[in-house]
Amino acid sequence: MVFTEFRPLDEKYLVEYIKATPALSDKIGNNFDDLKIKEVGDGNLNFVYIVVSPAGSFVIKQAIPYIRCIGESWPMTKERAYFEALTLREHGRWSPENVPEVYHFDRIMSVIGMRYLEPPHIILRKGLVAGIEYPLLAEHISDYMAKTLYHTSLLFHTTTEHKHNVAEFCGNVELCRLTEQVVFSDPYKVSEYNRWTSPYLDRDAEAVREDNILKLEVAELKSKFCERAQALVHGDLHTGSVMVTHESTQVIDPEFAFYGPMGFDIGAFIGNLILAFFAQDGHADQGNDRKTYKEWILRTIKETWSLFYKKFTALWDEHKDGSGEAYLPGIYNNPELHQLVQRKFMQDLFHDTLGFGAAKMIRRIVGVAHVEDFESIPDASKRAQCERPALDLAKMLIKERRKLQSIDEVVSAIQQLQ
Amino acid sequence: MVFTEFRPLDEKYLVEYIKATPALSDKIGNNFDDLKIKEVGDGNLNFVYIVVSPAGSFVIKQAIPYIRCIGESWPMTKERAYFEALTLREHGRWSPENVPEVYHFDRIMSVIGMRYLEPPHIILRKGLVAGIEYPLLAEHISDYMAKTLYHTSLLFHTTTEHKHNVAEFCGNVELCRLTEQVVFSDPYKVSEYNRWTSPYLDRDAEAVREDNILKLEVAELKSKFCERAQALVHGDLHTGSVMVTHESTQVIDPEFAFYGPMGFDIGAFIGNLILAFFAQDGHADQGNDRKTYKEWILRTIKETWSLFYKKFTALWDEHKDGSGEAYLPGIYNNPELHQLVQRKFMQDLFHDTLGFGAAKMIRRIVGVAHVEDFESIPDASKRAQCERPALDLAKMLIKERRKLQSIDEVVSAIQQLQ
Repeated sequence: MVFTEFRPLDEKYLVEYIKATPALSDKIGNNFDDLKIKEVGDGNLNFVYIVVSPAGSFVIKQAIPYIRCIGESWPMTKERAYFEALTLREHGRWSPENVPEVYHFDRIMSVIGMRYLEPPHIILRKGLVAGIEYPLLAEHISDYMAKTLYHTSLLFHTTTEHKHNVAEFCGNVELCRLTEQVVFSDPYKVSEYNRWTSPYLDRDAEAVREDNILKLEVAELKSKFCERAQALVHGDLHTGSVMVTHESTQVIDPEFAFYGPMGFDIGAFIGNLILAFFAQDGHADQGNDRKTYKEWILRTIKETWSLFYKKFTALWDEHKDGSGEAYLPGIYNNPELHQLVQRKFMQDLFHDTLGFGAAKMIRRIVGVAHVEDFESIPDASKRAQCERPALDLAKMLIKERRKLQSIDEVVSAIQQLQ
Repeated sequence: MVFTEFRPLDEKYLVEYIKATPALSDKIGNNFDDLKIKEVGDGNLNFVYIVVSPAGSFVIKQAIPYIRCIGESWPMTKERAYFEALTLREHGRWSPENVPEVYHFDRIMSVIGMRYLEPPHIILRKGLVAGIEYPLLAEHISDYMAKTLYHTSLLFHTTTEHKHNVAEFCGNVELCRLTEQVVFSDPYKVSEYNRWTSPYLDRDAEAVREDNILKLEVAELKSKFCERAQALVHGDLHTGSVMVTHESTQVIDPEFAFYGPMGFDIGAFIGNLILAFFAQDGHADQGNDRKTYKEWILRTIKETWSLFYKKFTALWDEHKDGSGEAYLPGIYNNPELHQLVQRKFMQDLFHDTLGFGAAKMIRRIVGVAHVEDFESIPDASKRAQCERPALDLAKMLIKERRKLQSIDEVVSAIQQLQ
């Protein structure tokens, strides 16, 4: 059987597909008798099948040419699977311990076969809602971000390699446009897709739409998102794109990947940790006031940035005489200048991180797609009480980010607003 | 005859080529008896033939796969002709009065057939050396820059169109790399290609290589050059890429074109006018002290920016409810915010312009390729006296550009340094 045209999978057809694909059938020892297949796509876009046999397992992810949760009325290129596979492989190359291995990719069928992240792996966001501490999270995610962002930037690449890759990922424009709309546009205007905890946050949502200074800053962030090809970013690095156990941190779902500003990834992750922090009061009960857990989240925010800083600049130091063309050794080879350049780069990146992180927070409170952290607080009034300070913090971060010098100042601001 | 593979033209083969190409032979009324052909490529890269008959004329430009003035030892993709033709057509679409019409393009042969800019058209730089005023220059060049930069940016395009075009022009990376080397790298390190008016400027050249703050700023400019796809820029818009008469201003040679920062074009033009200004004292003689001419250059610098500002924002105002996606009307449709956004955009662009302009000045004094404005001053000591204040001004502009608010302040700084 040859797959010469796209066809959506179902369980029966999936078995045929696996039989015809050695890279997959080998993984389960060609044993089709005790095969268990389960469709688990709980995301909004794709179908995901877990395939398990006594001999082995994998996951099959298929992109369909529309948005699953809406239907064929909202078409969305299935080519996103191509960019997802490309990114899983490129990020996996640099951070193999934090990216699931890709066993198979089929561009015509938009099918990715990859490692099944077995239990007890769960989506990080669910762990954060449940109040579970992950002692290695900051260590792992900073490792992933430092390695993937450094190695796909001009700090490591020649401009020839870089432009080649940038051109390729320009093809993922449809997914970028979805981000442009839901992150940088809809929350700042009247849109049928927007929602918020009404009536409590009606005035807050209106204030966002009427805040000229905020909108001025969001325009600058959007222009960076659209124009600045700094590194191959995951493009959707919130806490729902990370699977965890106590020992393992795995980054999944990079279908929004493109060459964009590094701060968009770091900000997405830290911004979603801040949302998790503000949601905790809504999950506190007599058995657990979540105070200790909130401290852990703050510590994790702090360590994520500090460890990222340390690891990213260490990679830079290590390769400063390498083939990267951003800072040629012949020009930047004196220690004082190297320090100066690095400090400026990291400060700009810090400000980008805060700006993008805050934009991602705002859209989760007054835009189309909300987060389980808040949605799982059943009492709307209580939920609004959690969301409002998060929204206020985000607005402050966007407007005042250039005045902030360190992650400690951010953590202080969070503490003051809680 | 079919041209299925590349072959360098000579006069004889050129005639055959024209005969086989209706778009060209029609232009000269298919009259090959009174044909005059003259090779005039005085640039460093290509061959240029002027073809004139009683019935009409055109220019043939052929890119060869190496740098003409150096030879086959420095290969340079002949695909640059493709990007040049593409840009002549795209820029010509928006500014037809200031871009020569393309009659014919042959990608295999890297041949462009285009309008012959008949006498008295001369290269603007030669006019500036000769002390000739061009009363419409600022009007025309600001028109060209406003129209081409506006219409190829996200102020006018959707992000879909933009990414498509960005990807295409990523292919012109070899020419971008040449710019990276000669503008952003070589002048700041010891390089066999660098030269300057020695021994007079030996210390000045050394000071450039040892100025950490300058090199920090140059790194930021280079990163913008490599990463920010803001608009389709000409990429080499110095006064040698402009042909003029008193009534006409024509922009030629966009083979360095790519999606980059707008300020790179505006800066190139203004920076080269500033070089022309500082060169005037070297051209003054008893018959002409060049004082009036220097006033005209300063006026032209001022008007180029002010008219650009006026025309660019007028285009923006005119199309603000159009399909451009940088500032969606649903978000930015209030007059106060529109003003705020525009002022911020133009201020950032002004600072980019000064930074890139100054970088282009520095490279013309201590880098590989110098300008006739200075080179035509025979007395080296006198030449150095003209070059030094230009170099000092450029260093100041790069370091202090964010503090400058208006083009008047730039003109004052020029006057103080002369």
